[in-house]
Amino acid sequence: MTGYLADGSDAAGTAPGVLLAHEAPGMSPLMRQRADSLADLGYVAFALDLHGAVDFDQAESRRRHAELMKTPFLIRDRAMAALAVLTDQPGIDPGRVGAVGFCQGGITVMELARARAPIRCAIGFHPGLRRPAGTPPGPIDARVMMLVGDDDPLAPPEDRATFAAEMTAAGAAWEMHLFGGVQHAFTNLGIERLGMAGFHYDARATSRGWAMMLDMLEETLAP
Amino acid sequence: MTGYLADGSDAAGTAPGVLLAHEAPGMSPLMRQRADSLADLGYVAFALDLHGAVDFDQAESRRRHAELMKTPFLIRDRAMAALAVLTDQPGIDPGRVGAVGFCQGGITVMELARARAPIRCAIGFHPGLRRPAGTPPGPIDARVMMLVGDDDPLAPPEDRATFAAEMTAAGAAWEMHLFGGVQHAFTNLGIERLGMAGFHYDARATSRGWAMMLDMLEETLAP
Repeated sequence: MTGYLADGSDAAGTAPGVLLAHEAPGMSPLMRQRADSLADLGYVAFALDLHGAVDFDQAESRRRHAELMKTPFLIRDRAMAALAVLTDQPGIDPGRVGAVGFCQGGITVMELARARAPIRCAIGFHPGLRRPAGTPPGPIDARVMMLVGDDDPLAPPEDRATFAAEMTAAGAAWEMHLFGGVQHAFTNLGIERLGMAGFHYDARATSRGWAMMLDMLEETLAP
Repeated sequence: MTGYLADGSDAAGTAPGVLLAHEAPGMSPLMRQRADSLADLGYVAFALDLHGAVDFDQAESRRRHAELMKTPFLIRDRAMAALAVLTDQPGIDPGRVGAVGFCQGGITVMELARARAPIRCAIGFHPGLRRPAGTPPGPIDARVMMLVGDDDPLAPPEDRATFAAEMTAAGAAWEMHLFGGVQHAFTNLGIERLGMAGFHYDARATSRGWAMMLDMLEETLAP
């Protein structure tokens, strides 16, 4: 696995950290840009790699996603290992870490939250809302914030309701933010060239969501 | 009608404006505090008064709310008159005005949006999501942002779905933000003493929502 570290710390042991979790197609230049943007704000950002592979095609992406979803603890174990890489960085305050995921990465950060990993918040952009096989229910301490396109075919109303019920049962302090007329992958300008039905970049939701994420990180990762 | 003006402008014709719309029980010290908070940030804030009366009891509040909801254009006409008071203030740039409502006030600001009044955004905290009688459907230009407690008995899932469908049909750029475990009137600390089922103050949703409102005002009311 080859993650990407963008270290915005300026003194040992004092910076907040953010773990970033990629979409189903894996590590990408966009993930590195997101990490760099957070480092510019003083975060130690680590974009994890669940796959140890890049540049596979859509069929392979679907196959890998299915394997992650049906194999108990596979996402969780890999994400926990990546979180340890982040919290071992010298610049970081390991008690002040959040996790942000995109698409499949929303599932990844929720797996950390369900594991009661030492993250203060789990934030998902156009997240998958379903649980991988084998994850037991239980209390969730991390603040949960999901940013969902109302027209996202991968997060239909029934999945939202199931997710909300799980979060409420888990005692989580959760938020779900719906953006009208917005589809899947809305933060990804590059998605346009693929021409996939139900996938569409949205500048408004991207900028609003990024600002909301920064507010949540600031609120939950304060010293 | 006796509204409350908090003028944060520092030069003629340059400040953004915010119209504030009260809960069903009418004008209150809390509404004035909200206006003052916005004036501190440089807004010209005007808290409208739909009733021309204060300190009526809950039965009278329900009666007045029902009258507003069943009388076509009653909310709209009064809100338009209040908006004119705001835009006539010397400090304000009348092209940069937003509207923020609480509870029944969410309906009030949406009536302005449906009327294509000169507001750039309509923001509702624990808003009613139903339409008053007689309001015709049509396009909505204002950005719409509703902040809803997931356990708000006055904004149940069926009302949210109907509202979302109306907004999408109207071509509105809309957002609906759901806060898990949060009930009606969540911004109102004073609601606690009334002991009403389904009504509850929530500090987290209040602070998160206020920050999101400020982001939206800043974004939509930029010069």
